Amino acid sequence: MGAPADQGAGTVDPGVHAGSLSLKRVAIVGATGYTGQELRRLLTDHPGFGTPLRWTARTPAPDAPDRPDPGAPEPFDPEQLTELDGLFLCTPHGVSAPLVRAAVGAGCPVVDLSADFRLRDPEVYADAYGAPHAAPELLEEAVYGLTEHERARVASARVVANPGCYPTSVLLPLLPLLSAGLVDGADTLVCDCKSGVSGAGNNPGPGNLFGAVHDNFRAYGVGRHRHAPEIHQEAGTSNLLFVPHLLPVFRGILSTIYLRPARGLRARDLRAQLQDRYAGEPFVRILEEGQPTLADVRMTNRCHVALEDQDGHVVVTSVLDNLVKGAAGQALQNMNLLLGFPEQTGLA
Amino acid sequence: MGAPADQGAGTVDPGVHAGSLSLKRVAIVGATGYTGQELRRLLTDHPGFGTPLRWTARTPAPDAPDRPDPGAPEPFDPEQLTELDGLFLCTPHGVSAPLVRAAVGAGCPVVDLSADFRLRDPEVYADAYGAPHAAPELLEEAVYGLTEHERARVASARVVANPGCYPTSVLLPLLPLLSAGLVDGADTLVCDCKSGVSGAGNNPGPGNLFGAVHDNFRAYGVGRHRHAPEIHQEAGTSNLLFVPHLLPVFRGILSTIYLRPARGLRARDLRAQLQDRYAGEPFVRILEEGQPTLADVRMTNRCHVALEDQDGHVVVTSVLDNLVKGAAGQALQNMNLLLGFPEQTGLA
Amino acid sequence: MGAPADQGAGTVDPGVHAGSLSLKRVAIVGATGYTGQELRRLLTDHPGFGTPLRWTARTPAPDAPDRPDPGAPEPFDPEQLTELDGLFLCTPHGVSAPLVRAAVGAGCPVVDLSADFRLRDPEVYADAYGAPHAAPELLEEAVYGLTEHERARVASARVVANPGCYPTSVLLPLLPLLSAGLVDGADTLVCDCKSGVSGAGNNPGPGNLFGAVHDNFRAYGVGRHRHAPEIHQEAGTSNLLFVPHLLPVFRGILSTIYLRPARGLRARDLRAQLQDRYAGEPFVRILEEGQPTLADVRMTNRCHVALEDQDGHVVVTSVLDNLVKGAAGQALQNMNLLLGFPEQTGLA
Amino acid sequence: MGAPADQGAGTVDPGVHAGSLSLKRVAIVGATGYTGQELRRLLTDHPGFGTPLRWTARTPAPDAPDRPDPGAPEPFDPEQLTELDGLFLCTPHGVSAPLVRAAVGAGCPVVDLSADFRLRDPEVYADAYGAPHAAPELLEEAVYGLTEHERARVASARVVANPGCYPTSVLLPLLPLLSAGLVDGADTLVCDCKSGVSGAGNNPGPGNLFGAVHDNFRAYGVGRHRHAPEIHQEAGTSNLLFVPHLLPVFRGILSTIYLRPARGLRARDLRAQLQDRYAGEPFVRILEEGQPTLADVRMTNRCHVALEDQDGHVVVTSVLDNLVKGAAGQALQNMNLLLGFPEQTGLA
Repeated sequence: MGAPADQGAGTVDPGVHAGSLSLKRVAIVGATGYTGQELRRLLTDHPGFGTPLRWTARTPAPDAPDRPDPGAPEPFDPEQLTELDGLFLCTPHGVSAPLVRAAVGAGCPVVDLSADFRLRDPEVYADAYGAPHAAPELLEEAVYGLTEHERARVASARVVANPGCYPTSVLLPLLPLLSAGLVDGADTLVCDCKSGVSGAGNNPGPGNLFGAVHDNFRAYGVGRHRHAPEIHQEAGTSNLLFVPHLLPVFRGILSTIYLRPARGLRARDLRAQLQDRYAGEPFVRILEEGQPTLADVRMTNRCHVALEDQDGHVVVTSVLDNLVKGAAGQALQNMNLLLGFPEQTGLA
Repeated sequence: MGAPADQGAGTVDPGVHAGSLSLKRVAIVGATGYTGQELRRLLTDHPGFGTPLRWTARTPAPDAPDRPDPGAPEPFDPEQLTELDGLFLCTPHGVSAPLVRAAVGAGCPVVDLSADFRLRDPEVYADAYGAPHAAPELLEEAVYGLTEHERARVASARVVANPGCYPTSVLLPLLPLLSAGLVDGADTLVCDCKSGVSGAGNNPGPGNLFGAVHDNFRAYGVGRHRHAPEIHQEAGTSNLLFVPHLLPVFRGILSTIYLRPARGLRARDLRAQLQDRYAGEPFVRILEEGQPTLADVRMTNRCHVALEDQDGHVVVTSVLDNLVKGAAGQALQNMNLLLGFPEQTGLA
Repeated sequence: MGAPADQGAGTVDPGVHAGSLSLKRVAIVGATGYTGQELRRLLTDHPGFGTPLRWTARTPAPDAPDRPDPGAPEPFDPEQLTELDGLFLCTPHGVSAPLVRAAVGAGCPVVDLSADFRLRDPEVYADAYGAPHAAPELLEEAVYGLTEHERARVASARVVANPGCYPTSVLLPLLPLLSAGLVDGADTLVCDCKSGVSGAGNNPGPGNLFGAVHDNFRAYGVGRHRHAPEIHQEAGTSNLLFVPHLLPVFRGILSTIYLRPARGLRARDLRAQLQDRYAGEPFVRILEEGQPTLADVRMTNRCHVALEDQDGHVVVTSVLDNLVKGAAGQALQNMNLLLGFPEQTGLA
Repeated sequence: MGAPADQGAGTVDPGVHAGSLSLKRVAIVGATGYTGQELRRLLTDHPGFGTPLRWTARTPAPDAPDRPDPGAPEPFDPEQLTELDGLFLCTPHGVSAPLVRAAVGAGCPVVDLSADFRLRDPEVYADAYGAPHAAPELLEEAVYGLTEHERARVASARVVANPGCYPTSVLLPLLPLLSAGLVDGADTLVCDCKSGVSGAGNNPGPGNLFGAVHDNFRAYGVGRHRHAPEIHQEAGTSNLLFVPHLLPVFRGILSTIYLRPARGLRARDLRAQLQDRYAGEPFVRILEEGQPTLADVRMTNRCHVALEDQDGHVVVTSVLDNLVKGAAGQALQNMNLLLGFPEQTGLA
């Protein structure tokens, strides 16, 4: 919670203080969903930002009357984009794309928490989301913001596509193993993922009623979840099964990944690779022993990973808070890079 | 709850009524654990049994004083075994074996809910449970009581080894597919299983505290859970990974099974096979569409199964109540067979 | 669960069996809400009823096309009322009143689970529910169906107003104490009540989302809950405060009642009075010691009550399942009386 | 979480920074319970403290061997007390008293989170806790650390008795109303309180098992909870009933208080009094409308209060996080005063 240890007041980075003399100005579009609320919570604890503007995705009507409720978000205002230091989009897929185009046009760096710029191929996007992409000319330059793997490109991006929550939990442990050739590619990778309810948003419906979720559990989206093409793209393989499940908790994702190591390697070999790759990373921890739990990372930007041998395979378990490292926290981590703040500022 | 539809008062099977004129006498050893309590609850609704005797696993001390608490269970009494129609053992592994030997010696049929007679190979048992088997001479004749698959042998058994909760949830969907050759044996079967807390028993410890389980989730026993050899034995393959997880619910197991069908078959082919195999079975339902949830089968003896295609594989999901079909309910189903009651009597 | 002990197959009441030869026909209007679903579940276990008709509150359109979905409820059909043995209304207040009038006109006894006939004074009704009563001519004859207190009148009623869940939990312990003059009337009675979410129905809204209820707790309706006038009317006093709270559970109500006994009486005196009053009642249990919990009565039609001294007052705690004794179970208990079944048939 | 807005890096109080140049040294005795863990979490976010020493309540054995586990707490070391700036005791009642005496003797200010110094009368203590007080000579000078009401005395205390969680939730709203004479003293005050499980500590037992608490609810300690005399003492009246209940949540207390206002006053009058009394207090918020929920204050040091009229009475509801404002947070708030930090440092 709050600033991490090395950001305590006794040791605050001077750059942050200097920066905070002229606080950065950002806007959040879609601030009333769970993700937008979480982002506002995180920004409250960040020393470098003023109070963010809160916008809805609607552009203002020409002759709109005065807002009756001064506490409500204002409509998206393209005129103000040039005065902003950054833009967060907590809008649904399809809604984000034109707003991203407007931000790029105004020179305002944007972190998009929707799926609109995660898939590089517009045909894959159209297939997964059922509509053509609304700003395909920006797909090529958009950076997939899995921060620990795209740090340099994020820092100079105009558009950061913030990764999905499930993909983040799967890719953080898998990418270094795949790129080092430690996984037997002939075997199917199985990713059995379990998420809390907040991942489904706060629009009331039969599926997120207390009476439907409490004391219950189920799989969903089997064979057709939209995060599957995102994982396939980033993992560089489609020989990977992904099935999500709905846990009776509010926050948190645990992914259980089954893989066959290359060349008879063991869990300890893969663990060593990950520990080496993530040494010094404040938000990724590779456990030496024991199993991670959702509670270990709740309300933090951390991902904890364990690896165990089983019958010639390795079982990898990975936990994160879907609203933080899986959404608003990673978005802030990316914005920190974009605006020159130390990456972990405002994140625990 | 209560009697199934075809046991309603208007259509009660005469045999049950006749039987109830001379109610069957059974004893439960270990009646204070979750499983023993559940069994007592089920027997209360069963028209064919008198109130069961409640025994502890201790044999009576020769000069024991009178029991101070008349409500407490009495010590296991081998003298009374000859007067019983059946014996349920809700005792831990290692404790059951000598009690089973005593029951067999007295001619009393026994359903053992522990793991003592599930593994046919005493060396596998010793390896999994850390001690030599205490009654190896009975291993060969003990019947593995997965009722829908061993009905005839159960009915004439002296010893029924009631299956584990996880194995039941995995084997009910898998066995017909494996025996019909519908599964590609070259591919590793992955069984990712999630259980409520009651599976862990009611001995207080750090792992089943409310503060440790509520709003949390984790894997456990990765690479070393004792149900793995049981599943391997019954499935007839060790090319099968099994990882259990602990859900923040009290009752219920959901198993997600990943398999590659043989010969390019599809989910609909495997579904048809299971629907055919389980047609007429009151306790196994193969869903035509949709995903099963824990709530669908809570407090029932049913197992619901769904199958979906995903990227050339089939994802099988299976739910049951671990205390009923995964323990006490299946035990009663087996005892019904042993004593000549219609199999579903007292079960919903 | 299922039939109570004295309804087991070995001792089934012959009258029920005879009755089941000609199963009673009932309809449920509003069968898709939590209460209607619960009633259908209970009727499934009842030996004396055929499958109930499922109706919606809408009367059929004259030229309506054929129903596309054969599984959906049919519109309320006044023509069929004369062929029914009884009618259950699980409809909202305001909707029930005209349906009750139709049932009375057709000579069909009706148990109304809405609030429409609980308040005897139409002005109090109009004040609490914001609209004039739609069938005031029936208010006088409607019987308030707190079964243990109105058994004889229920049995011969044309209209039974099934009590609210909160009032049932408060009135069962209070009424015998008040009528025996054991409560000091000068002191304010405080009823602090806590309910699971199912009491609020299954229409999705911000208040019954998992994210709003899970791991949370709050009071609601303070100073203006519609059950207050119902409690005041039946308790015969308005010197009684009632505040409801929302528990993060699905089923169950616990009411904590603070009262000052008359004449320096103690908890044991009041307990004795209640034990005497409810001796032989299958669904009300006055505990000798210990505190009742929601789990003790879940899925049952029972109400458990405890009484303890504290600083010259007596603290009464009362638990029931709001969907059973607080709604569908008590409705079935009343319908049993109306149709001549033993009162506890189909109830546990 | 983390520093409140006015402690952000851009506006950090210089005094804190100066202080942090020489970080304060504290020890926590009993750091493994829920309260001790929470205190360690809060201190991690506080800029003015070094890593706290972790001690057990045992004094070191003369010839003790080296500790085998370097991560385990060390025994209480009276020799080091003189080098500490402050001491937190998260020890059980009875254990704290001699440690407090040692701290006072060494000139080390102590915040005791146990009940040992909350009751001023040693006879009341002996009656409530079943043993004579072990350091009665310190009772008179110990300050009851309800910070908002004892700020000046806390700042100069040698011993601060940190209030109980229930008393804090009841006294914060009640004290200003009582002292201003706004409550009708002739009427019994009823305090119906509901707490999450963490208040009961983390020693495993039947009462805090997941299976006993999940999806359940009950009253406990009726007529004999040890927080009653503490509330009576501080409220200055014994005409107050207090009954605690156990919620199926981990953190949080909601107290519902029923009172009759003096002289026909209304909720708005009492609300105005509380708003005036707590104006400028960062941790107490009197709601203008609506009901507070546990989630509103979770993981914060805040107490939210609402007041509503009902039938001539006023219903007061109060929420706080029992581990923060009800324990570790208020302890840190008090230690901030003792050591000269701004009171809200490290608290949200």
